[in-house]
Amino acid sequence: MCEANAYLLKEGKEELILEDISVLRPEKEELYLQNIFGEQKRIKARIKEMNLLDHRIVLEEV
Amino acid sequence: MCEANAYLLKEGKEELILEDISVLRPEKEELYLQNIFGEQKRIKARIKEMNLLDHRIVLEEV
Repeated sequence: MCEANAYLLKEGKEELILEDISVLRPEKEELYLQNIFGEQKRIKARIKEMNLLDHRIVLEEV
Repeated sequence: MCEANAYLLKEGKEELILEDISVLRPEKEELYLQNIFGEQKRIKARIKEMNLLDHRIVLEEV
């Protein structure tokens, strides 16, 4: 499967925010995340880097 | 494979920018894109929406 996990970078450490993300959409100052189970999250963050082969989306706080 | 294709939304139409993207990284006002063949692109755009199951990254001009 091709989903990715989102991690929030906080004080040099990565905190897992949501697994198996299928949809990501910036909304004003937030990011909307949705995973394959229908779980949704909005977080005040922006994308720092994504690596789809590693299934990783690294976010940083706005 | 889990790469995605990036499309730039321009006047309501989607223009294919780069296929099989593995890495995406915002850099100031640009987006850095790299695909599995090592091809790299920088484009003045931001993410509008991503759907990883559809392997689609839709960008819009800044």
